[in-house]
Amino acid sequence: MLNRNLSMFIGCDKEYADSDIVIFGAPFDGTTSYRPGARFGCSAMRNESYGIETYSPYQDRDLNDVSVFDAGDIELPFGNTEKVLKMVEDRVKNYIGDKKIPVMLGGEHLVTLGAVKAAVKMYPGLCVVHFDAHTDLRDEYLGETLSHAAVIRRVWDLLGDNRIYQFGIRSGEKFEFEFAAKHTSISRYDLDKVGKLTEELKGKPVYFTLDLDVLDPSVFPGTGTPEAGGVSFMELIKAVMKLSDLNIVGADIVELSPVYDQSGVSTAVACKILRELLLIIGGKK
Amino acid sequence: MLNRNLSMFIGCDKEYADSDIVIFGAPFDGTTSYRPGARFGCSAMRNESYGIETYSPYQDRDLNDVSVFDAGDIELPFGNTEKVLKMVEDRVKNYIGDKKIPVMLGGEHLVTLGAVKAAVKMYPGLCVVHFDAHTDLRDEYLGETLSHAAVIRRVWDLLGDNRIYQFGIRSGEKFEFEFAAKHTSISRYDLDKVGKLTEELKGKPVYFTLDLDVLDPSVFPGTGTPEAGGVSFMELIKAVMKLSDLNIVGADIVELSPVYDQSGVSTAVACKILRELLLIIGGKK
Amino acid sequence: MLNRNLSMFIGCDKEYADSDIVIFGAPFDGTTSYRPGARFGCSAMRNESYGIETYSPYQDRDLNDVSVFDAGDIELPFGNTEKVLKMVEDRVKNYIGDKKIPVMLGGEHLVTLGAVKAAVKMYPGLCVVHFDAHTDLRDEYLGETLSHAAVIRRVWDLLGDNRIYQFGIRSGEKFEFEFAAKHTSISRYDLDKVGKLTEELKGKPVYFTLDLDVLDPSVFPGTGTPEAGGVSFMELIKAVMKLSDLNIVGADIVELSPVYDQSGVSTAVACKILRELLLIIGGKK
Amino acid sequence: MLNRNLSMFIGCDKEYADSDIVIFGAPFDGTTSYRPGARFGCSAMRNESYGIETYSPYQDRDLNDVSVFDAGDIELPFGNTEKVLKMVEDRVKNYIGDKKIPVMLGGEHLVTLGAVKAAVKMYPGLCVVHFDAHTDLRDEYLGETLSHAAVIRRVWDLLGDNRIYQFGIRSGEKFEFEFAAKHTSISRYDLDKVGKLTEELKGKPVYFTLDLDVLDPSVFPGTGTPEAGGVSFMELIKAVMKLSDLNIVGADIVELSPVYDQSGVSTAVACKILRELLLIIGGKK
Amino acid sequence: MLNRNLSMFIGCDKEYADSDIVIFGAPFDGTTSYRPGARFGCSAMRNESYGIETYSPYQDRDLNDVSVFDAGDIELPFGNTEKVLKMVEDRVKNYIGDKKIPVMLGGEHLVTLGAVKAAVKMYPGLCVVHFDAHTDLRDEYLGETLSHAAVIRRVWDLLGDNRIYQFGIRSGEKFEFEFAAKHTSISRYDLDKVGKLTEELKGKPVYFTLDLDVLDPSVFPGTGTPEAGGVSFMELIKAVMKLSDLNIVGADIVELSPVYDQSGVSTAVACKILRELLLIIGGKK
Amino acid sequence: MLNRNLSMFIGCDKEYADSDIVIFGAPFDGTTSYRPGARFGCSAMRNESYGIETYSPYQDRDLNDVSVFDAGDIELPFGNTEKVLKMVEDRVKNYIGDKKIPVMLGGEHLVTLGAVKAAVKMYPGLCVVHFDAHTDLRDEYLGETLSHAAVIRRVWDLLGDNRIYQFGIRSGEKFEFEFAAKHTSISRYDLDKVGKLTEELKGKPVYFTLDLDVLDPSVFPGTGTPEAGGVSFMELIKAVMKLSDLNIVGADIVELSPVYDQSGVSTAVACKILRELLLIIGGKK
Repeated sequence: MLNRNLSMFIGCDKEYADSDIVIFGAPFDGTTSYRPGARFGCSAMRNESYGIETYSPYQDRDLNDVSVFDAGDIELPFGNTEKVLKMVEDRVKNYIGDKKIPVMLGGEHLVTLGAVKAAVKMYPGLCVVHFDAHTDLRDEYLGETLSHAAVIRRVWDLLGDNRIYQFGIRSGEKFEFEFAAKHTSISRYDLDKVGKLTEELKGKPVYFTLDLDVLDPSVFPGTGTPEAGGVSFMELIKAVMKLSDLNIVGADIVELSPVYDQSGVSTAVACKILRELLLIIGGKK
Repeated sequence: MLNRNLSMFIGCDKEYADSDIVIFGAPFDGTTSYRPGARFGCSAMRNESYGIETYSPYQDRDLNDVSVFDAGDIELPFGNTEKVLKMVEDRVKNYIGDKKIPVMLGGEHLVTLGAVKAAVKMYPGLCVVHFDAHTDLRDEYLGETLSHAAVIRRVWDLLGDNRIYQFGIRSGEKFEFEFAAKHTSISRYDLDKVGKLTEELKGKPVYFTLDLDVLDPSVFPGTGTPEAGGVSFMELIKAVMKLSDLNIVGADIVELSPVYDQSGVSTAVACKILRELLLIIGGKK
Repeated sequence: MLNRNLSMFIGCDKEYADSDIVIFGAPFDGTTSYRPGARFGCSAMRNESYGIETYSPYQDRDLNDVSVFDAGDIELPFGNTEKVLKMVEDRVKNYIGDKKIPVMLGGEHLVTLGAVKAAVKMYPGLCVVHFDAHTDLRDEYLGETLSHAAVIRRVWDLLGDNRIYQFGIRSGEKFEFEFAAKHTSISRYDLDKVGKLTEELKGKPVYFTLDLDVLDPSVFPGTGTPEAGGVSFMELIKAVMKLSDLNIVGADIVELSPVYDQSGVSTAVACKILRELLLIIGGKK
Repeated sequence: MLNRNLSMFIGCDKEYADSDIVIFGAPFDGTTSYRPGARFGCSAMRNESYGIETYSPYQDRDLNDVSVFDAGDIELPFGNTEKVLKMVEDRVKNYIGDKKIPVMLGGEHLVTLGAVKAAVKMYPGLCVVHFDAHTDLRDEYLGETLSHAAVIRRVWDLLGDNRIYQFGIRSGEKFEFEFAAKHTSISRYDLDKVGKLTEELKGKPVYFTLDLDVLDPSVFPGTGTPEAGGVSFMELIKAVMKLSDLNIVGADIVELSPVYDQSGVSTAVACKILRELLLIIGGKK
Repeated sequence: MLNRNLSMFIGCDKEYADSDIVIFGAPFDGTTSYRPGARFGCSAMRNESYGIETYSPYQDRDLNDVSVFDAGDIELPFGNTEKVLKMVEDRVKNYIGDKKIPVMLGGEHLVTLGAVKAAVKMYPGLCVVHFDAHTDLRDEYLGETLSHAAVIRRVWDLLGDNRIYQFGIRSGEKFEFEFAAKHTSISRYDLDKVGKLTEELKGKPVYFTLDLDVLDPSVFPGTGTPEAGGVSFMELIKAVMKLSDLNIVGADIVELSPVYDQSGVSTAVACKILRELLLIIGGKK
Repeated sequence: MLNRNLSMFIGCDKEYADSDIVIFGAPFDGTTSYRPGARFGCSAMRNESYGIETYSPYQDRDLNDVSVFDAGDIELPFGNTEKVLKMVEDRVKNYIGDKKIPVMLGGEHLVTLGAVKAAVKMYPGLCVVHFDAHTDLRDEYLGETLSHAAVIRRVWDLLGDNRIYQFGIRSGEKFEFEFAAKHTSISRYDLDKVGKLTEELKGKPVYFTLDLDVLDPSVFPGTGTPEAGGVSFMELIKAVMKLSDLNIVGADIVELSPVYDQSGVSTAVACKILRELLLIIGGKK
């Protein structure tokens, strides 16, 4: 009763020094072109996480058995995209430097660029696994190269060909699909081929970026650009579990925009997926 | 034009004396730990039932062909859980005494305890069929043994081992699943094995309790604790139809919380499921 | 910067003279018996279409490659059903007279009657393909013969037996299903048999009417009478693509009621379906 | 527990034969030009009335002390405006014939026309007191003379000059204000001059029509066409109390559209105003 | 970046030992009879407080200049009203024992009873100042004496006559107003006479309980039972400032139910009032 | 029927060459720190303007009598604040160069900076009249000098002392009020002293910037940072009418964020205020 009120994702109560994983929020949605609000995603996940259990029947494991520290949200400036990305990059750099695995909660998808920048410096052979409804491969959007719609293109600028694996993609301009055909490994509509990554990425450092709009909007309406025809919750959970043999050195979950789903279902879904992802990543230690 | 305005579920307009089934509401949500509002479930179903037809194409039968009396809602006190359960128990006892089959509309899941208490006194060999996302097998929740999260555990206190059949379960603490493994028949995630009940429960008196959150939140967001990864409407309807050969002596439908779904879909779904359930139960006479 | 602000569905910017297809809105919901609001469907689709791309990965084609003129909404009177239908009929008659294919955006389903009236005069052998959750085969509703619940019955008055093909139907009174058994080709619950139309309707003029409530309310809650148990977005898209060999001379998309879905998903879904439909119809030229 | 569930406005539980006042609903919104939904006003008031008390501290009187019968809603057809008005007229005619004072709950404002038609036949010297944000004096709207925007003009057709008293008006086309200047007694923006009616209408039969959008949208957002700059709840209550010396032979409360106010405040406000109005009308017996 | 994420009301960041005031949440709504949800009031205020400034132009003072510790929420059981009240009482007892002024954030109004019970033991001459729309003077509600609708009656059981000062009251049963006339000092509808307390309560220990529904629902729709005809925000702020000379030994702010106001205005209003109240109470040190 | 669908604010249908006033939208909310969404303000006003009349009873004038061209929205990039301001500046420069009075529809408040930059170049003696809840006088916000919270400070950078007149201010940090005391003319809480401007600004070129959150959130909840204690709609309208003798050379209306007010009232209020403002500005020709 004399203690302050701590705000953390359920079960993520280890001390920093003892933790294997650090979660933190990047509440930014400054380049969102359609409907903003993803800035509230990370705090919503933290607040609503108390509606789920720490135990996963899918994996028969419990968040209390892994070591996660919740570092809260970065306090980001509004209206200065470059500075935001630099702050994300610095944060991720420090966590990796401390031998932690950073798991970033968005925010919009562009924040991934800052995290990947830090990760690729530490792990030059880094590959990126990308679940999304959109290709995110535009070269620019309304004249801006730093845009949520161009984030994977910018990641490609850093990594080059054959290092990006895209799944669930079902929306984009024609030239984006053409670019993907040449420069990334793209899998349309579903996550069926995620299992092949175990072999292909064996031993390589992997950054996993999960744009939650890969889910069908029936189960995840709370996002800026809902795209019909997505995967189900169980399909996503099963695909995430297939990542368990990869060497994940960083990850993020982005594009929850809670204001567009007043039932709260989208936030609850995001919380459960984060729980499963933390169990997958934390389980290898 | 000189008549008063009656409020009843569509097609449930038989006289009490002539009825086989009595539906009534138990507008209680006093132990809901996350998001309250299930108290409004029963009246919402009644009001919105006029958006559906009395005819079911699935069963090719019509509510007008079965004999249902709608007794309205019990007027329950707020803040006194024990008295609420006693009032539910008394009501169910009377209906069963009058040779009716009670079908209770929640309210939260704890109201089932009052109904089962009455039913097991009349039918000592009673078995319970339980569709739910949650095990509901905690021994207590925040120190309280009378809790929606402990209702099936309390039912087990009354019935003992091998009398409870759980389906669709996908959430709970680890010890709840362990308890289930020892003391109930539990089927995770889906309703695929409901068909086996025909054989196992042949001739036995059965109470059927349906927590609507067994449905996927995509089609049923209007509930206190939505759990992703649930069954579809058609899966639920088909499973309910598989109960047609059981000797159902009482039933309930709980945990609709309409305020969390402003589209009205959740209420419409609940109405349709109640229609199908009434046709199943009433069809055997 | 000196130009006026044009409001049109994305990619539908051809000149009238050059267009093969004309889309227009019929913002009417005057006979809606349950929850009105479909009058806002057509303008919502236009406004929100900028959240989707013109390119369809499903068909690998782009709206910019077909010739569509967006004629805006008809300004309809309120409270005079007959006049509304006459105005729709006149509009469709003119477009067909100009060798265009009209694609009408509802509004409620009754507007289809006006369009079919015009079409059958031009194409006496017209057949109607009807995707819907409801039979819409009542002879009257609360004494009115001009009702959304009777629209296909009125279409049958015009066409007679064996000219109406219904799919996805899962709700109606018993006598409606009996009527369908005698007078239309009806396919319950799903769209699985749409493929057979290629053969059956070869060479015949076809009017395609799509009541969006054929979709499951999980992905399309924004409609007046949501009916659980519907088809998925992908099932609908695939069925629409199966119509590509038919001789479609007119079409409509009706019953989007955006106010009931504050997430915006329903409108986004409708936009995407319209895009696919326009690509199907426009692709044959 | 063997009784059916009655649905009535709180405290309106007298038998028809014993009642002085009869309330009934007219759930029609067929000519609403902007945002429909007033059809749900009357049932919302009935359902939510249990959130208020029967006792008014403003008047120190209780609904239990007046004699009101709640006759429920008329079952109106959709899409046939003339028939709707005839059904309202017949209903009001019967009530007045039975020496009751009818109080109609809308629905949209056009239903007033049916009620006034019946009333003026019984009371040829009838005057109308009209609280509203809008003049409602158009001769037609989009070609229709039977429109919510023309209802007072139609009432004027029946009554002629100097029989209509308008208060609170703050919106209309220029020609409507010019018409009012010649043919009605109009008071803009507020209700300050309502008190003068006591003298002017002494002994005359009065029909009182209350369009709830006379209230400021801050306290009453739940209406089709909210107009800023309206009166406060207390100003309205005080004005209604000033009607206590008039010979009110009929009244209505229209244009609550609950779907546009998800806080429920608008419905609660309407309930309270109805309570006060019933106490005013019923108090004279 | 290595620190945990603290959750506290803006500016309430002093250490417990150094603080004059302790704020804490009592997230209970178990006896709410109409619309539950007040349990979320305290956490909503904390989360949304970052939308306001710590500086008050009304008082020209800043929260950083007073010493407030935010102790978070009590973890209360659901469904056991007596235990909840005991936990609140114990908490308040401890704070007062430590020479702090407790300021409780509701939750529903019944929690005040626990706080007053503790306060009157420490300050036997305690008086209560009560701002509310409702008398809260029922002896029981649906058979329960521990009810939000009876809380001030229960407080009167503890304090007796002439110790309770009620303001803004505009709703209740007739017998409640009669009870108030005999046993409390009641001021209807407004807060105009709050200034007289300075003289009447000079030197006496005062507990101040603020039911936010004293505000007009136009500015505060987010509450379980909105009552039209309330005071404005400025009237409330000015009345609170008039309490600055009283010897306030405890206080609470109750009945914010954020789910009913999706605009967020109600929560923002509550935050600002809490800021002003803390400045008033903390300013005397 | 062969014409394209034009989207314009009601009554703003003059040709550019003939117009005195040009309205255009600046759909930007990139520096919004709390709740984004103001980017949708301008299109919402245009779409919903058809719910109001062109005639103002307050001024007895009609939009059809003034000459306004609606130029639609500028297509702004996301995430690049400097470029956005430059695009606004260029647009305003052109309009002023063409002897038009620009009236900009926000968007967030920072867009005003671009407009004032253009205006002060054309009118070096420019004064700014500023209605707002907030001072907007921070020097930076989270390190950014281009922020909605700093916009008036940036305007002061351009204009210097004694050229800015602020009204209705009720929120800000202490140092902002101190800055205002030295460098601007500030009037707290209300608009009572707006009338004095007629004398003070006689003959001077004036830019009028209206942050709609100056209104009380009861009537205008649809804004990013609602601040209780604001002015009423009538107070605002009367203050706007007091500007009629000023030489307004440019103006804007900002910070409508329609997503936060699902009743639509905020948008309707904004439309009406724009109508009155256009009548004031256009009336002098």
